[in-house]
Amino acid sequence: MSEKYTSIHYHKYLQLEKILSAQDPRSALDGEAAHDEMLFIIIHQVYELWFKEIAHDLGSVIEMFRTDNVDERSISTAIARLDRIIEIQKVLVAQIRVLETMTPLDFLDFRNYLFPASGFQSHQFRMVELMLGLKSDRRITYNEAPYTDAFRGEQRKILEELEKSPSMLDLLEAWLERTPFLEFKNFHFLKAYREAVQNMLDEETRAIEESDILTEDEKKMRLQMLGDTNSYFASVLNETRHNELIEKGELRLSYQATMAALLINLYRDEPILQMPYLLISKLLEVDDLLTTWRFRHAQMVMRMLGRKTGTGGSSGHKYLRKTADEHKIFSDLHNISTLLIPRSKLPKLPTDLKKELGFYFTEANSNS
Amino acid sequence: MSEKYTSIHYHKYLQLEKILSAQDPRSALDGEAAHDEMLFIIIHQVYELWFKEIAHDLGSVIEMFRTDNVDERSISTAIARLDRIIEIQKVLVAQIRVLETMTPLDFLDFRNYLFPASGFQSHQFRMVELMLGLKSDRRITYNEAPYTDAFRGEQRKILEELEKSPSMLDLLEAWLERTPFLEFKNFHFLKAYREAVQNMLDEETRAIEESDILTEDEKKMRLQMLGDTNSYFASVLNETRHNELIEKGELRLSYQATMAALLINLYRDEPILQMPYLLISKLLEVDDLLTTWRFRHAQMVMRMLGRKTGTGGSSGHKYLRKTADEHKIFSDLHNISTLLIPRSKLPKLPTDLKKELGFYFTEANSNS
Amino acid sequence: MSEKYTSIHYHKYLQLEKILSAQDPRSALDGEAAHDEMLFIIIHQVYELWFKEIAHDLGSVIEMFRTDNVDERSISTAIARLDRIIEIQKVLVAQIRVLETMTPLDFLDFRNYLFPASGFQSHQFRMVELMLGLKSDRRITYNEAPYTDAFRGEQRKILEELEKSPSMLDLLEAWLERTPFLEFKNFHFLKAYREAVQNMLDEETRAIEESDILTEDEKKMRLQMLGDTNSYFASVLNETRHNELIEKGELRLSYQATMAALLINLYRDEPILQMPYLLISKLLEVDDLLTTWRFRHAQMVMRMLGRKTGTGGSSGHKYLRKTADEHKIFSDLHNISTLLIPRSKLPKLPTDLKKELGFYFTEANSNS
Amino acid sequence: MSEKYTSIHYHKYLQLEKILSAQDPRSALDGEAAHDEMLFIIIHQVYELWFKEIAHDLGSVIEMFRTDNVDERSISTAIARLDRIIEIQKVLVAQIRVLETMTPLDFLDFRNYLFPASGFQSHQFRMVELMLGLKSDRRITYNEAPYTDAFRGEQRKILEELEKSPSMLDLLEAWLERTPFLEFKNFHFLKAYREAVQNMLDEETRAIEESDILTEDEKKMRLQMLGDTNSYFASVLNETRHNELIEKGELRLSYQATMAALLINLYRDEPILQMPYLLISKLLEVDDLLTTWRFRHAQMVMRMLGRKTGTGGSSGHKYLRKTADEHKIFSDLHNISTLLIPRSKLPKLPTDLKKELGFYFTEANSNS
Repeated sequence: MSEKYTSIHYHKYLQLEKILSAQDPRSALDGEAAHDEMLFIIIHQVYELWFKEIAHDLGSVIEMFRTDNVDERSISTAIARLDRIIEIQKVLVAQIRVLETMTPLDFLDFRNYLFPASGFQSHQFRMVELMLGLKSDRRITYNEAPYTDAFRGEQRKILEELEKSPSMLDLLEAWLERTPFLEFKNFHFLKAYREAVQNMLDEETRAIEESDILTEDEKKMRLQMLGDTNSYFASVLNETRHNELIEKGELRLSYQATMAALLINLYRDEPILQMPYLLISKLLEVDDLLTTWRFRHAQMVMRMLGRKTGTGGSSGHKYLRKTADEHKIFSDLHNISTLLIPRSKLPKLPTDLKKELGFYFTEANSNS
Repeated sequence: MSEKYTSIHYHKYLQLEKILSAQDPRSALDGEAAHDEMLFIIIHQVYELWFKEIAHDLGSVIEMFRTDNVDERSISTAIARLDRIIEIQKVLVAQIRVLETMTPLDFLDFRNYLFPASGFQSHQFRMVELMLGLKSDRRITYNEAPYTDAFRGEQRKILEELEKSPSMLDLLEAWLERTPFLEFKNFHFLKAYREAVQNMLDEETRAIEESDILTEDEKKMRLQMLGDTNSYFASVLNETRHNELIEKGELRLSYQATMAALLINLYRDEPILQMPYLLISKLLEVDDLLTTWRFRHAQMVMRMLGRKTGTGGSSGHKYLRKTADEHKIFSDLHNISTLLIPRSKLPKLPTDLKKELGFYFTEANSNS
Repeated sequence: MSEKYTSIHYHKYLQLEKILSAQDPRSALDGEAAHDEMLFIIIHQVYELWFKEIAHDLGSVIEMFRTDNVDERSISTAIARLDRIIEIQKVLVAQIRVLETMTPLDFLDFRNYLFPASGFQSHQFRMVELMLGLKSDRRITYNEAPYTDAFRGEQRKILEELEKSPSMLDLLEAWLERTPFLEFKNFHFLKAYREAVQNMLDEETRAIEESDILTEDEKKMRLQMLGDTNSYFASVLNETRHNELIEKGELRLSYQATMAALLINLYRDEPILQMPYLLISKLLEVDDLLTTWRFRHAQMVMRMLGRKTGTGGSSGHKYLRKTADEHKIFSDLHNISTLLIPRSKLPKLPTDLKKELGFYFTEANSNS
Repeated sequence: MSEKYTSIHYHKYLQLEKILSAQDPRSALDGEAAHDEMLFIIIHQVYELWFKEIAHDLGSVIEMFRTDNVDERSISTAIARLDRIIEIQKVLVAQIRVLETMTPLDFLDFRNYLFPASGFQSHQFRMVELMLGLKSDRRITYNEAPYTDAFRGEQRKILEELEKSPSMLDLLEAWLERTPFLEFKNFHFLKAYREAVQNMLDEETRAIEESDILTEDEKKMRLQMLGDTNSYFASVLNETRHNELIEKGELRLSYQATMAALLINLYRDEPILQMPYLLISKLLEVDDLLTTWRFRHAQMVMRMLGRKTGTGGSSGHKYLRKTADEHKIFSDLHNISTLLIPRSKLPKLPTDLKKELGFYFTEANSNS
């Protein structure tokens, strides 16, 4: 019988000796510790513990996708782990309120003894960003210094390796590109979709022209809107144009992967696409919550320090605020919204494809 | 062109004339309105609006399951709508904090003018409970009066009809019973599972007996624990025993449905079982959040009124508190936890069943 | 210049070497670690870090009140620190959702290697309960063993000392008893209040008897209700009766302290009573959130383990569920709600008392 | 006996006939209603109900401050009502998650039938912004049209009147200006504070120069930082400079009011300043939560519509995003953080002032 079956006490199992002895307020060096420094230390330690868990879960998902042959059984595990990350992120955002119970005046009691710009020195947070897909070429810099400057030795090496490893975004792209459903026997998704878009626009044009409710001015305005929509679709469904936008850095996912994501969004109710759709939704959610966290973090720094500019020249608040806008990773998946058309206008799927996309939990259906 | 394409103003679309003119504080009848009565009215109206949305979503899910042949495409829609109900429930729980900003002293300024026991008179809340599966035979009564006493005319008729209609719980049971996977060709799930449980217990017994780490006392204690577990499994996997517990009102789901739910829990990573597993999880979540809401509601009533006993004899707080324990609907699904064994001890699925349970999003796999 | 002015790196300041190396999954001893054990370890460590902060804040408040002469400047600090505890408690409750992303099947992968009944072994949680005022005479026991059985050595000694030290509840009681406003020159609060209650009840009796809207039956019912209220007030404002209830363990705060808390609730808008009122409200909030946490904890254990009874005889879920009802500490403050009468019926304060209770931030008032 | 004592049924009291009959999906005009339009209607109605409550509470606070002689008893009521607004705002932010359960594809089923730019047409939201202090001169415009363009008749008139009425910001400023404590007998707060700042900077300069731990480079860097801080304080404590920033629109609160707010922040533990400090904190919190709401609203619009540009030229998302940065109202109160110095460096208050700022709840103190 393995050693692991012997009892272990809660206190020892959680190594609380270590955990609970790791709070040494700097303000105590000069006499009495500032009461609120304890909170400052503890909340940052809590953040780091959660970052460790996020890296643990995210790393396991990345591992599952590092193959050309992702096991379908992994998808539900991946979704469950992303769901866990999402729940953790909600806690990360919510607990900012705890730190906000420390007032600027209380912070002053120990602020001087601290490193400047704390948030920039979390190694694990940088790891998580890199794992998701925020590499240095997409990153805005603080006072023009590369983010790796804050790290040395082993820590730096880990970041450099992550810079070179495939991120979640890279792996998602490759996985999307491998789907066979964009071209299935005689069904060419993109061709059918372009036609459906055209039909929809033609139909609306006719409806406007023949309307006896709209005034002439309203007709003109609405036709102009339709024209805009028309050119918009023409442009975004165009592969050459898509590649140009990738060049410029405005898009990141390949044309092929984007079209696969579009197909998943449109036909997400087909049994085989239900889990892929959830997967994409969860990644978007992770990204959005990261953005919310950055926003709330910036807001909290503003509350604590005001708008005062640091010595470095740029204010922490402004930089943080900007990252909330610029450090998005999966925004291409958001942009798919602009490509959608209503379900009623969708191209009908051929029967054999529909069968391929289906499967059945109950008997009645499996006989149908 | 349909009338619906003409513009409509936000204010008119939302019928704000009606919505925003529906607050008439009773305290105003005697002179100046008590400031906080507005909050009391508005928060209850907000609750009722949300109840309407919940009934709308839940009703649509029930509709999908009222057939022997549930369309597999509906499952993802059902999950999405249950997810919406869950998010609404979180808001229902969270906004109790808003009502708690009203203090008991402020409540006294208008409390006398109100109906007693407000919460018991929400028609929509009773509808939702009935739709989920809380019918009168499972309901604890307040001061021994049937809950329908609070309603008249059309409202009462609706409740009486819901009492007779299949609830979400009934429909879930029927759907689970229809799965073909409990008996698939030569694979008899229950037989295989019983054997696996036995193997697991035998293995652990041996490990304990042969251990040279455990003391004799520890061995004895652990063997006794194993014995308990053994009889527990024997009892709960027994159909006759299960039916007795249904008789007594301790269980609600049929043996067949329970075993299907067990199978789904154990093999939830198989592609075909991923969505059924999510469906079950969401129903459990809805039930748990309803319980949390009842608990917080009881807590809030206690804060507002103290422990004071009402004239009727029983206190509102006590009754509400009890419903949080007794009005659970899907608790049979919780109890499945006690039937689970670790993945590593699970019976292996035969290849043809495994294939039947699978499907593939990417090309590589579909060729495998 | 002190050493503390020299820079220290984020990583070293937070002792992340220690914090992030304190996760050793037990399941790893036998081969590969179960993925979810990491979450189990980390979330418990996070809980312990937060408990340390709560003990730090609560301890400082207790320190301020360990004197017959509480500095009025401390009251706002105490309120701010209780507010912080409240925000932490909200996080403690919210993050249960993170643990709930671990399913019972995932838990099975490592559950066997763990201590049973983890929650009972948190030393810091017991400390916090004791500091608030939950001493062993008020505590329900789990399987009839004293809660201290789980602790040895230094840890046990600390708990035993806290058992003997004045708790927050004790100190609050003493502070309330010291207020001079219950008897101020010619104003006897309790006498005036009893009269006001009587006047209010007489007035309502007359209104009912003379009503030409109510039917005879309604009149009878309402008069009976008033009678009940009458005896209720008579009983609860009675010192002898109050002391009997303390004897029986149904009340905890002395009569004198309860009356002071009643006065604060009724006249909380008087400047001098504004902060005392907030202080009482915050303590109630802390207590309510502790109750919510216990409830959610019990719910989570049920989800993870079902209703299965442990070897000890009693189920963890049932015990936890019961503590949510029985381990309240400040419930006497809730019961004050039942003693309140509407502001319009309150005894008028004599001018000199009113002046004593006032103070002024702006000039205009200070001249008035 | 007044009519109000007669019973009224929950359903009638809440006017649920009106409330629950006010949902007419536009998509139904053409046949079957799109399922999710119900959610869209209901959540917007819920928002409007909450806006009504916010306006009710905020209006009552404004009323209390529309006098040169704000009753000190009102301050605690004002704080309680702002607290309620804060709790409502948290719900407003949290319930965006409910709307996010509607996917872009579901939205497409009825989006065409709607008004464009819904959010801009909420009359009550504009009222709340105006009441707080966001008047048209501080407002960024959407497509260069004044925000009042969306309103007609009575609604427009109300907004125009609010434009001219004193806002919460105006009234707070006036109230702050009236405090007598900036000049109290021989104590001149500003003079004493400037000296304290100077002493603190001198002391730190000496400590750096005499340090034998710091290197020459570190000394130089730190002295330069101190120099920056020095000029910063000199500049912001300068009345002429302050007025220039008001001219430019970078500040809003008068110099006198800002100094009063600074005094409150620094000496907030003095009994008389405890409630004023809470009042200021609550207003900041309301402002911050409004900003968070704008941010999350923008994020949700992005998720629903992608980055697609509207016909008008500018995208809704970009505009909303910008308002989150620019439509802050009480940011001058945040900036006070930059003026604070640690408690230990604060000018000591003369005894007579200290006495004036104090008051005592317990007997012991009142004799001291």
